[in-house]
Amino acid sequence: MSGRATDNPAHTAFAVTRWQGSAPLAAQDQLADEVAVALVFNGLSHVVMMASPTALADFALGFSLSEGIVSSPEQIYGIDIVSRTVNGELGIEVQVELATECFVRLKEKRRNLAGRTGCGLCGAESLQQAVAAPQTVPVQALPASESIERALGQLVGQQPLQALTGAVHGAALCDADGNIRLLREDVGRHNALDKLIGAMTSARLRDAGDLPVAEQSFVLISSRASYEMVNKCCSTGISTLVAVSAPTALAVNHARMAGLNLIGFARPGRHVIYSEALATDNHPQRSLHPEQAQQSVCGLVS
Amino acid sequence: MSGRATDNPAHTAFAVTRWQGSAPLAAQDQLADEVAVALVFNGLSHVVMMASPTALADFALGFSLSEGIVSSPEQIYGIDIVSRTVNGELGIEVQVELATECFVRLKEKRRNLAGRTGCGLCGAESLQQAVAAPQTVPVQALPASESIERALGQLVGQQPLQALTGAVHGAALCDADGNIRLLREDVGRHNALDKLIGAMTSARLRDAGDLPVAEQSFVLISSRASYEMVNKCCSTGISTLVAVSAPTALAVNHARMAGLNLIGFARPGRHVIYSEALATDNHPQRSLHPEQAQQSVCGLVS
Repeated sequence: MSGRATDNPAHTAFAVTRWQGSAPLAAQDQLADEVAVALVFNGLSHVVMMASPTALADFALGFSLSEGIVSSPEQIYGIDIVSRTVNGELGIEVQVELATECFVRLKEKRRNLAGRTGCGLCGAESLQQAVAAPQTVPVQALPASESIERALGQLVGQQPLQALTGAVHGAALCDADGNIRLLREDVGRHNALDKLIGAMTSARLRDAGDLPVAEQSFVLISSRASYEMVNKCCSTGISTLVAVSAPTALAVNHARMAGLNLIGFARPGRHVIYSEALATDNHPQRSLHPEQAQQSVCGLVS
Repeated sequence: MSGRATDNPAHTAFAVTRWQGSAPLAAQDQLADEVAVALVFNGLSHVVMMASPTALADFALGFSLSEGIVSSPEQIYGIDIVSRTVNGELGIEVQVELATECFVRLKEKRRNLAGRTGCGLCGAESLQQAVAAPQTVPVQALPASESIERALGQLVGQQPLQALTGAVHGAALCDADGNIRLLREDVGRHNALDKLIGAMTSARLRDAGDLPVAEQSFVLISSRASYEMVNKCCSTGISTLVAVSAPTALAVNHARMAGLNLIGFARPGRHVIYSEALATDNHPQRSLHPEQAQQSVCGLVS
C-alpha cells in the first residue's frame, strides 16, 4: 500500500499570464481539477459534491461512514466509479451498493426530510439536524508536541497535488511519533478528510499491520477545522484532530462535548490546544483561574 | 452606509492552552462563531448552511440572486431573521418573502429534483445541474495592476473578524482604483461572496451615488476561487474576480466561457491572469506560441 491515491493526476495545464513587478509573461500553470461527483446509493442519487477526481472509492466509503449512512464498512458491498461527460464537462457517478437495512434507513430519512423541507447540509434540511450532538470518542492522550512538529514537517512534501496547484487541502493519518502514514488531497477540505477516513478504513480491513492503531494515531488537516470536520472525526472514532489553521467556536464546543482532542494553529514551534480529553506530561492540565475553569465547562469565557 | 456589517460580533472567547517552544500557557482565544442558518422561502425551508451570524439579510438577498431564485431584488418583499436554540446551540432562520412567480418556479424546480434524486449542491441534485454553463458577463477591461495592489493592501485592515479569529474569509467590492468600498466576512468563502452580492445590491438600490458602478469595479476574495464562486459572479453580472489564492481548472473554464476576468494568486507585487475579456495597456494580450493559442481556446494546454 503506497499511502497515496494515484488513480488520476487531477490537474490540468492552462496557458496564463503571470504579472510580476511591471511585466506580463506568458506562462503555463497547473490547476487542480474540480469535478461534480454524485454519490449514488443503490441507484438513488443522494448528493452531488465538487471534488478532486482522485481516490473516489475512499471518498464514498469515508463519506458513508462519517455521515452515518453505514455504521461499518461491511455494509458496503461494492463501489463502482462511472465517468460521464455532462455539458462538455466531466462528471463522475460513484455507485455504492449498500446493505438493505442501510438503504431502507437512508430512504426513510430522506422521506421524512422531503415532507418538511428539501435540500441542504449533506441531507440535513432542518436546523435540528444541522446541529445534532456529536458522538463521544475514545479517550486519548494528546500527541507529544514533538510528534505534531514532525507531522507538520512532513506535510508539505506529502501533498503532490497541492505542490503543483496550490489549490487543494490535505488530510493525513499520523502515527504516535508524527510520521505521516496515509494522506489524501482534495479541492474540498471536508472531502479530503472523508477520503482519508475511507482510506484508513480499507487499509485496516486489508491488513491491520501496516497502519498505526487508532489509539496511537492522530489526524492532521492542512485547513481550518469547522464543526463538520469535528463531527466527521467523532462519528468515525478519531480521537485527535490537529489543524494547521483556526477552528470555529462550534467546532471547539463539539470537540469538548465529544472528548476529542482538538489542536489548531499548528505551526512550526507552536500550536493551540482547544480541547483535551486527558492531561499528559507533555501537555499538563491547563491551570486556569477558578472562575475560568468553571466557565470553560461550556467552553465560554466571556 | 458604513460598508461593514456590525449586527453581531460573531466571535466567542474560549479558554485555551497555547504551546510555544516547550511551555504550555493558559490563554484566551477569540473563535469565529459558526451557526446553522436556514434559508426559508415563503415558509419552505430550502437550504441550511453553516455561516457566520452576521449580515444575514445581505446573505439571503445575495444567495437568492446568485443561485437564480430571483432575477431582481424587487422580487423579494421582505426578509425576517429569527434566532432559535436547537440542541443547546444557536440556529437562525432567515425567512424570505418571495414574489409568487419566483416561489412557483422554486417549488417546481424542487419537485422535479425530488422525483429523481434528493439533496445536493444548493439544490442541484444531478450532475447535469451541477455543471450548468455560466451566464456571460458584460465585457470589462482588466483592473490595473496598481489597483489590485491597492486593494490587497487594504484587505487585511478591513477584515475585523478575520483579524480576531483567523478563521474567516472576506469578499470585497473595489473601485477602479482598488479602494475597498464594501466588505463582508464569513466562515464560508461562498457565503462571504453571497453576503457581498447582497450588500452591493441593496446599497445600489438605496443610493446609486455611494458605490462604484459595476463597470468600474471588481470583486476581491481572500480565498481560492472555485467554479461555484465564478458562477455566482456570472449570474449577478460581476465581470472581474480577483482571488488571493488559486482557482480550480473548472473555475477557469467557466470564467473563459462567460468572459469573466479571473485573476488568482494576487499577492504583493504579482498576480496571475487566468481569464481576460479584453487586452489593455496594463495587461497586453498574451503572446502565446501559435500551438498554445490554438489549444487555449478550450483552456487546455496539455
